[in-house]
Amino acid sequence: MRVLGIDPGTVITGWGVVESKGSGFRHVAHGSIRTSAEASLPDRLGCIFSGVSAVIREHQPEVASVEEIFVSINVQSALKLGHARGTAIVAANALGLPIFEYTALQIKQAVVGFGRAEKQQVQAMVKMLLSLSALPQQDAADALAGALCHLQRASGVAALLARQEAR
Amino acid sequence: MRVLGIDPGTVITGWGVVESKGSGFRHVAHGSIRTSAEASLPDRLGCIFSGVSAVIREHQPEVASVEEIFVSINVQSALKLGHARGTAIVAANALGLPIFEYTALQIKQAVVGFGRAEKQQVQAMVKMLLSLSALPQQDAADALAGALCHLQRASGVAALLARQEAR
Repeated sequence: MRVLGIDPGTVITGWGVVESKGSGFRHVAHGSIRTSAEASLPDRLGCIFSGVSAVIREHQPEVASVEEIFVSINVQSALKLGHARGTAIVAANALGLPIFEYTALQIKQAVVGFGRAEKQQVQAMVKMLLSLSALPQQDAADALAGALCHLQRASGVAALLARQEAR
Repeated sequence: MRVLGIDPGTVITGWGVVESKGSGFRHVAHGSIRTSAEASLPDRLGCIFSGVSAVIREHQPEVASVEEIFVSINVQSALKLGHARGTAIVAANALGLPIFEYTALQIKQAVVGFGRAEKQQVQAMVKMLLSLSALPQQDAADALAGALCHLQRASGVAALLARQEAR
């Protein structure tokens, strides 16, 4: 299974593609979609939409994983972030990808082992788990962590189902 | 000029198309895009995206007008609304429409004459200004009001430019 993780933002949208390989994982690609600081909101969303679409067309993931947002940001930031997140989701949905949502707690727990991990710990663990030569940029690392979280949960469910069938 | 007004929401997205006719306006069409209460967020956004795209393809507006949001809703509602609003904007942007944003104050002032007008007053004025036979549903009325606001402002600017050129 090949998973696209997305960490949406109006300025930087991180993305990462990971696939399962035997009982482990393989890094496929990662990067970030940066919108121009001078661009209007519609143009920024257009940039996120076409950026996410291009990543899906190039790397052909089967599912997408997007972080759920519960942070106590203010109303205007939430509205802004909602625009970017909605755009990323609708781009994946338009290309037929099922979308799974995980909380930051679930993602950190999957990658670092505990939910209160720092951003830097997530970056370091993602680098190690995927045998990357360099530390991925923060938004891309979060996106890769989201993809890994889905793979772990999906393989967990697959293992459960296999065990149940074996009974 | 033909303007599409959009009043986005995750449950109901109102839309209305109005065009200028001489020094007045003409109602073209209006309606609302309703998403299923049982649908997932990605499917709801997909429904808004394809609904707005279909309206644009059918009625061929040249610009879109979307209300800016400043209301003191809570963070989770703002995030939700942001998803719907971002989706509507990116659909219009994908089909090449320039997008204008107006505050509720500007829209009410344009349609009713004062910024603190009630929702019902907006509905009644939209019905009257566009000679509709029935009161439009609230979200569609807000969308039509947004379109009218843009037409009034655009014709105001056009009149100013014409006067300046005549000097």
